[in-house]
Order: sequence, then structure tokens, then C-alpha cells
Amino acid sequence: MNFREKFEAAAKASGSFLCCGLDLDPLKLPAGFSATVSGLKRFAFKVIDSTQDLVCAYKPNIAFYESLGLAGGKLLKEIIRHIPGRIPVILDAKRADIGNTSAHYAKAAFEEFCADAVTVNPYMGSDSVEPFLKYTEKCTFILVVTSNKGGQDFQFLDAGGEPLYIRVARKAAEWNTAGNIGAVVGATHPDGIRRVREILKKEIFLIPGIGTQAGDVEDSVKNTFLFNGTGIFNVSRDVLYAGGMKEIRSKAEYYRDLIAKAYAARGG
Amino acid sequence: MNFREKFEAAAKASGSFLCCGLDLDPLKLPAGFSATVSGLKRFAFKVIDSTQDLVCAYKPNIAFYESLGLAGGKLLKEIIRHIPGRIPVILDAKRADIGNTSAHYAKAAFEEFCADAVTVNPYMGSDSVEPFLKYTEKCTFILVVTSNKGGQDFQFLDAGGEPLYIRVARKAAEWNTAGNIGAVVGATHPDGIRRVREILKKEIFLIPGIGTQAGDVEDSVKNTFLFNGTGIFNVSRDVLYAGGMKEIRSKAEYYRDLIAKAYAARGG
Repeated sequence: MNFREKFEAAAKASGSFLCCGLDLDPLKLPAGFSATVSGLKRFAFKVIDSTQDLVCAYKPNIAFYESLGLAGGKLLKEIIRHIPGRIPVILDAKRADIGNTSAHYAKAAFEEFCADAVTVNPYMGSDSVEPFLKYTEKCTFILVVTSNKGGQDFQFLDAGGEPLYIRVARKAAEWNTAGNIGAVVGATHPDGIRRVREILKKEIFLIPGIGTQAGDVEDSVKNTFLFNGTGIFNVSRDVLYAGGMKEIRSKAEYYRDLIAKAYAARGG
Repeated sequence: MNFREKFEAAAKASGSFLCCGLDLDPLKLPAGFSATVSGLKRFAFKVIDSTQDLVCAYKPNIAFYESLGLAGGKLLKEIIRHIPGRIPVILDAKRADIGNTSAHYAKAAFEEFCADAVTVNPYMGSDSVEPFLKYTEKCTFILVVTSNKGGQDFQFLDAGGEPLYIRVARKAAEWNTAGNIGAVVGATHPDGIRRVREILKKEIFLIPGIGTQAGDVEDSVKNTFLFNGTGIFNVSRDVLYAGGMKEIRSKAEYYRDLIAKAYAARGG
């Protein structure tokens, strides 16, 4: 089963396009969980147990595990192993390097951490992306438009009559000969989603920026599902640190429903 | 002692601008070293012992350690600890993410791995770089022009009358209020080095692409040292996999001398 099939099955089973980010921060744990690696693990396991029927994917961001030192890698592996096999795991790592080095990043993400998908930074171009694409059953999400303010420093520069991010999207289309490329396009730029969708008509979009970052859910959903498109809408902090498990679950339901409502209302 | 002082002292003591990349590949070890984590460790320690008087820095690329699984993180820590304290360690990690996440990457590089410098990808812009810059004694090398072929996909696009990499260099100059930014500019683009040097006049350049990637040493050195500039010239594979320790040492001497010769001949 390749990534697209796994994602589509998970979305269908849960009736949800929501992805829950697993960005574990010892400083933000709710009461009852110690700010230790074992506290983080217990918290993450509980969050997964409490939300697994509400999501189509989980997305741990590896930075939060690296900052824990050596124990962080082990924790990340355990968390990925705890996620039910039917739910795809997107490792948010934003990696890329020259070709022979990127092959090592791809191996780490797909073989060591056993992620189903990984996020990749396009700045270094084709040979930095290509080793990831060799894993044809996996998905490589190229950063096209990121949700942060700094994303505008370069991504929106005019590059020969169109913004740089459009050039990135065009390259991604060119690279996608095996159908295993996706695109990261932030909900903070719904118009960017529409423009990227015109180029990558059926690719899976990974949409960050909902929740704390205040992206536009309605327009983001509408534009993601244009043509034959589909997408995965990520919320991290706003679900994860909503309070106890009851609040976490109800925040996940809230976003699942918000996305579903926008999906139903999108027309077309 | 901040990064610049440490680098300058190391370059002066060794009479060398050569940095040795520590990209450990179990498939490329010379005879006498097993393709295991302990074989890699023994090899790396010997390489460091054999070359420490010939280099101004070491640069482990973290991808090669991540692909080894959990043992890789421990190995990387041990190798960094084995490097004599007077020699700066550049962690080649090419990280960056939205601000609150980049803070975790910075913590991992500088506090967990205790690197003196790290490489950072600029695609996500200012807030993705800023958490690294808070470590004022450390150095953050921004990818400006990379040495690989794919680097031309986006870095050389015309972005409002000048190549994208020049826009990146201008932003790096703007961000460098604490004097702790450096730039990665590949030796495969000596003219790019010159153009970036015109913007970042005294910043330390990290120059990959010499050796296997066949960058131009003479022009790269000349352009790096224009104005008040200085630089660190990295060779990884061509030194590391030259043969036994004798060949490794003599390859390191060869590159040290090649760079020194170009430095002496640069005129100006």
C-alpha cells in the first residue's frame, strides 16, 4: 500500500482530513505529566490513544525530539511505533543536502524512523530531492509556501514573472514522475494554495498554519480540493496543548469538523 | 572565545584554511576497519588524530549519523568530544523551520551536540534563522550558493534583476547584527563567491565543493579573501577515503598546501 492509498483509507475511515502534529514540548505538558522523557512519552501515547479515530495522519516534528538529546531519537521511534499501522506518519524534518548526503537523510526518515512521508526543503534543487523519491511507496512533501512570516522573504520574490514558490511548484511537478511527491502550502496563504493547485492538480497537499498560526480554513480547504486535489490539514500546538485529554480530544473534533464543514461547503 | 576567534586561532596555529568533513560511510572504510559503529568510531578517531595539525575545523555532516539509527547520535557526540577543544566543529545540518521549531534545532546543534557552528537553509526566511543567531558566540552559516548541480534550479533564478542567491546574501547581511553569520558558497561557483563577497565583506565563508566535486580552488580562494574576508575550505570524501591513515594525512596536506598556495598567489 503506498502513501496515497494509506492516507485515503485513513481519511475515509476517520471521516477526517485533520493531521495532529506531535511536537512535544516539556514546558507545555498538562498537569499530571512530568517534564521528562518518560512524561513526554506517556503524554504522546495518551494523545494518540485519545485522537486516533479523529485524524488521517500524525506529524511529529523531529526538531522537538533532537533537542531532547540522545533520548529524543528513541522517544520518536517509540511514538511512531505506537501510532496504529493504518494511520500514516509524516516526519516533519525539512531535510535536504547534496545527493549522496540526502540519501542518508532519506534512509534515516524512511528506514530508521519508518515514517510514511517526510518534508523536504527545495533550496538545493533536484539532486537533493531525488534520493527521497526513490522510495516510491513513501511520500516526499516539498516545501512550496511555508506558513511562517519569514516565508515571504524569498518564496514570494518575483522570479522571472512569477513568485519563486510557483517555480518550486513547477519543478516539483517535473520531479513527480513516480506520483510520490506532495507539497507543503501554508493555510496562511490560501491564494498560494490555489495557484499551486493549478500546477500540481492531483498531488496531496500538506497544509500547516491552522490553529495558533491563524490560517484561513475555509479558503484553504476550498482551494486544496480544486481539480483532483486532496490534502492533509495539520494542527499542532492548538490541539496538543488544549488542556487534559478531554480538551485535546474535543479540540481535535473541533478542527475535524471545521475542515469537514469547509469541505462540504466548498461547492464546485 | 567566539567562533571567529576560535577559527582564527586554529587557522593560525595550523597554517591551514582546510576543514576536513567527517561524513562517515560504513561502505567506504579502508581495510582494517569494520563496517560497524565501533569501526566507524575507531576510524574517525584515527582520522582526527592524524589530521588535527593540518586543519582549521572539522565538519561532520549529521545525515551520515542519522542514517545509522540511534547509535549514530551517540557516535556523533563522541566524535565531537574527541576533536581537540581548540579546533572548531561545524555541524553540517542544513536545518530550519518556523521560529518556535528552529529554536529546538538550534538547541540540538549548540547545546546537545556542542557544535561551534551550524549550517542553515534560508528558504523559510528570517524567523527560521533567528533562533540560531541568539547563540552569539556560535556561528550560523547560511546556505547561499550550494556546490551541487541542483543548486542551480532555484539559487540562480533571476529574482528582481539579480539571482536569488544574491537576495539571500543581502538578507544574511541584514540579519547579521551580532556578527555571528557566515555564508556557504560553493567552490563550483567562484564567481558567485566574488559576488557574495561584495555584499558580505568580512563574513566567514564556508566553501564546500573542493575535491570530489571539482570546484575551482584558485579562484575560490582569491575571491573568498577579497576585502576583509576569510574562509574555511572543506574537503570531505577526497580526504576521508584516500586510503589508510598515511594517504589520508598526505591528502590533507595536499589540500592544505593547495589552498595556501592559492592564498599566497592571490595578489591584491
